[in-house]
Amino acid sequence: MSEHRVVVVGGGFGGLQLVNELRGAGAKITLVDRRNHHLFQPLLYQVATTILSTSEIAWPIRQLYSDRRDVTTLLGEVTGVDPTAKVITLRNGVTLPYDTLVLATGATHAYFGHDEWEPVAPGLKTLEDATTIRRRMLLAFERAELESDPAVRDALLTFTIVGAGPTGVELAGIIAELAHHILPEEFRNIDTRKTRVVLAEAGPRVLPSFAEELSAYAQHALEKLGVEVHLGEMVTNCTAEGVNIGERFIPSRTIVWAAGVQASPAAKWLDVPADRAGRVVVEKNLTAPGFPDVFVIGDTASVKREDGSPVPGIAPAAKQQGTYVARVIRARIAGKTMAAPFRYSHQGSLATIGKSAAIIDFGSIKLKGWVAWWVWGIAHIYFLIGTRSRFAVAWNWLWIFLSGKHSARLITQKETMRDDG
Amino acid sequence: MSEHRVVVVGGGFGGLQLVNELRGAGAKITLVDRRNHHLFQPLLYQVATTILSTSEIAWPIRQLYSDRRDVTTLLGEVTGVDPTAKVITLRNGVTLPYDTLVLATGATHAYFGHDEWEPVAPGLKTLEDATTIRRRMLLAFERAELESDPAVRDALLTFTIVGAGPTGVELAGIIAELAHHILPEEFRNIDTRKTRVVLAEAGPRVLPSFAEELSAYAQHALEKLGVEVHLGEMVTNCTAEGVNIGERFIPSRTIVWAAGVQASPAAKWLDVPADRAGRVVVEKNLTAPGFPDVFVIGDTASVKREDGSPVPGIAPAAKQQGTYVARVIRARIAGKTMAAPFRYSHQGSLATIGKSAAIIDFGSIKLKGWVAWWVWGIAHIYFLIGTRSRFAVAWNWLWIFLSGKHSARLITQKETMRDDG
Repeated sequence: MSEHRVVVVGGGFGGLQLVNELRGAGAKITLVDRRNHHLFQPLLYQVATTILSTSEIAWPIRQLYSDRRDVTTLLGEVTGVDPTAKVITLRNGVTLPYDTLVLATGATHAYFGHDEWEPVAPGLKTLEDATTIRRRMLLAFERAELESDPAVRDALLTFTIVGAGPTGVELAGIIAELAHHILPEEFRNIDTRKTRVVLAEAGPRVLPSFAEELSAYAQHALEKLGVEVHLGEMVTNCTAEGVNIGERFIPSRTIVWAAGVQASPAAKWLDVPADRAGRVVVEKNLTAPGFPDVFVIGDTASVKREDGSPVPGIAPAAKQQGTYVARVIRARIAGKTMAAPFRYSHQGSLATIGKSAAIIDFGSIKLKGWVAWWVWGIAHIYFLIGTRSRFAVAWNWLWIFLSGKHSARLITQKETMRDDG
Repeated sequence: MSEHRVVVVGGGFGGLQLVNELRGAGAKITLVDRRNHHLFQPLLYQVATTILSTSEIAWPIRQLYSDRRDVTTLLGEVTGVDPTAKVITLRNGVTLPYDTLVLATGATHAYFGHDEWEPVAPGLKTLEDATTIRRRMLLAFERAELESDPAVRDALLTFTIVGAGPTGVELAGIIAELAHHILPEEFRNIDTRKTRVVLAEAGPRVLPSFAEELSAYAQHALEKLGVEVHLGEMVTNCTAEGVNIGERFIPSRTIVWAAGVQASPAAKWLDVPADRAGRVVVEKNLTAPGFPDVFVIGDTASVKREDGSPVPGIAPAAKQQGTYVARVIRARIAGKTMAAPFRYSHQGSLATIGKSAAIIDFGSIKLKGWVAWWVWGIAHIYFLIGTRSRFAVAWNWLWIFLSGKHSARLITQKETMRDDG
C-alpha cells in the first residue's frame, strides 16, 4: 500500500498540533502556509506595544520539522480546493494531490461591512500588523512632540481601541502604561501623561467571555491605569481624524481594531455552508459536510460544545482539534474508523491588564491580581516553542520589570514621517 | 547670556558621541534624525542573515537621552540649511535656529551611475534594507523548493554579493554557512548544499583595507566555506535574472550590493565643495568651508590624515570626530578658541568570515582565525549599547554556537510569495 498523503494548510496552533501528533503514523505529510513562520498570536499584542520583538514569538515552520522526514514544508498560498479530484492548487500553479486534507487556515479581522475602516483602524493578526500598529503609535507621539496646534496634538495623543476582548484589553493596558509611566521622561514639548486611551466596546462589559466579577475587576484595573472604558455603544465611523462612538466623535489619530473576526475562505473553496463569520459548519468529527476526507479545524471551523454553545477561537481549542483529527487519521491509516466525536474541554481563560494585573477563569477557580499575572506569565512561557524563545521572552519581561524600559521601540518599514498612511 | 543652541542632525555613531561628550557643557542640544533609532551598523549584516533580530542592534534615540534635560530629540527629515540665517528646515515645515550646527547625516549606497540596479540589488544601510535582504534570500530557497525547472532552480540558488569590503565578505560567509550547513536538513526537494555564493570584487583582492596576507587568508577562508570569489572584474549589469561580471553572465535571482557609498546631501544644503562620493571637504577643524559654525562629521565628511590618506568611513572615526567637535564647542561656549586640528588615530580593522574565522589588523599586530573571532565578538558586544542588548546578542551567538540554529529566520513585510519585487 502506498503512503497516505496528508496535506495540511495552515501552520497555526491547530495545524502544528496535528503534524506533531502524526509523528510516526506512516503518513506523507505536506504542510503549506502563506507565511514561513508559525506565530504565537497570544503574545502578538506585546510586539505591537514594543515589549517583544518579532523573532521572539515566531519560528520558521520548516525549522520545526527539520528532523521529520515525513514532513515537507511549502511556502504557498492556496487558491482553490477540488474535493472531488482531491487536489489543492497554489497561487503559483503548483497542485498537490491528497488522500486527507486538513484546512487550518485561521481567521482575519472583520469590519462588519465597513472594510473602508481598515486603512485607519488596522487589526492585529500578523507580524506586519503588529509592526504597523507599533509604528503608528510611536509616530503619533513623535508628531505630537513637533506639533504646535493644541487640538491636533490632543488628537495625536488619543489612542482608540475598538473591542474589549482579551486583545483589546491587553493593548489598552500597555499603551496606557507606556504613555503614563515610560515615555514622560523622554519628551520635552509634550506631557505624555495627558495621553487618552479609549477602549470602545459595543457590549455591556469588558472581557465578555469571563465571569462577571472578573470583568468588573478588569474594568477597574484598566481605569486605574487611566484607560477610558466606553461600554454599550457601537463604533459608527472610523476616519484618519477620529472615531464616532454612538453619538460622540472622539478626535483620535491612532485607532486599533480588535473587534470582529472573519474566517479564511475555506467554506468558499469547498462550497459548503458557513456561519455568519464565514466558518465552516463542520460535522461532529470535524469533517466538512459531504467531504469525509476534508477536515476543518481552528478558527476556520464552527464547532459546538455538547451544550450547544460555540467552542471559543483560542489556541487550546485549535490544538485539541488538531490532536483529535490526528487520531482519526491514524485510525483510518490502520483501516479502522473512529466513531467518537470531537469533545472540547475548556481549561480556562486568561487575560492581562498592564504589567501587574491579570485575570484567570478556570470555571470553579477564579484568580485575579498579581497571582494571576504570574500564572499567566509562566503559562505563556511554557507554551512558547523552544528554549531560546522561552529564555528570550522571560529575559525581556524581567528586564522591563527591573529597568522599566521597553526594548523593541522601533519605527520600521517606512522611511520617514511623511509617508505614513 | 542665553544658552548656546547646538543642533545635531543624525543619530549615528558621530552624532551620539558628540551629544554624549556635551553632557554638562551648558548647551541646549536638539538632536534630529529621520529614524527614531540609533543603529549599530557593524552588525546589520547579521540581521540580514537571520542571526540577530532588529531590536537587538537598534535603540530608540530618545530613550538614550531620557535623563538628559539638555537634549531634545526630534524625529524629522532635514530638507534645507540656511547657514546665513543659521536655521535648518524640516520636511513638515518646522524650523530650528542654531548657534552651532553639526551635520552627521551619514551615507547611503551608490551604484556608480546605475541607480536602475537598486531594485534588484539592494544595499545594506537600514533595518528595512536588512529585512528586505533577509526576505529575498529566504524566499529564494522557498521558491527553489517549489520550482520544477532546473535552470530556474539553479538561478534561485545562486546568490551574488557585489563588493568584497567587510560587509560583502561577512554576508557571503554567512549565506554560504546557512546554505551549506544549516538549511540542508529542512528541504525535501532541493539540496541547498548546491547553493552558489558568488562574491564579485572589481579590485585585485578581498578586504582591500587590510594587509595583503590577511586578505589572502580571508579569501582562503571564504573559499573553504564554498564562496566563489571573483576578483578584478567589474559588474556591468544587474537584472532580475542575474548579474554580468566582466564578459560573463551569472544567472542569479538574489543580488546584494555592498560596493559603493554616497554621502547624504549635506554639501548641497551648504553649497560647498564635495568629493566624488558627495562628502563635504571639511577644514582641519571639521567645519564646512566658509561656515565656522557648521561642523560636518562621519561618513558625510571627507577628512584626510596627516599623511594625506583618507580617514576611513568606520564607526571609530566618526566617534573620534564627535569627541573632537564636542571639545571645540565646549571651548567656544567658554569664550575660547581651540587651535588644534582634528587628528585621526587608527585603532585597527576587523572583519569576520563565517562563524569561526576573523581577521584583525592592528597595524603592528595581525590576528586571524578563531582568536581573532573571539576578539571580534567581545569587541562588538562591548560597543553595543546597554546591558539588555549585550546580553541578548551574546545569548544569540551562544545559542547558534550550541544549537546550529539561527533565530531570526522570518520572512516579513510582504503578504505572500507573489508580490515580491
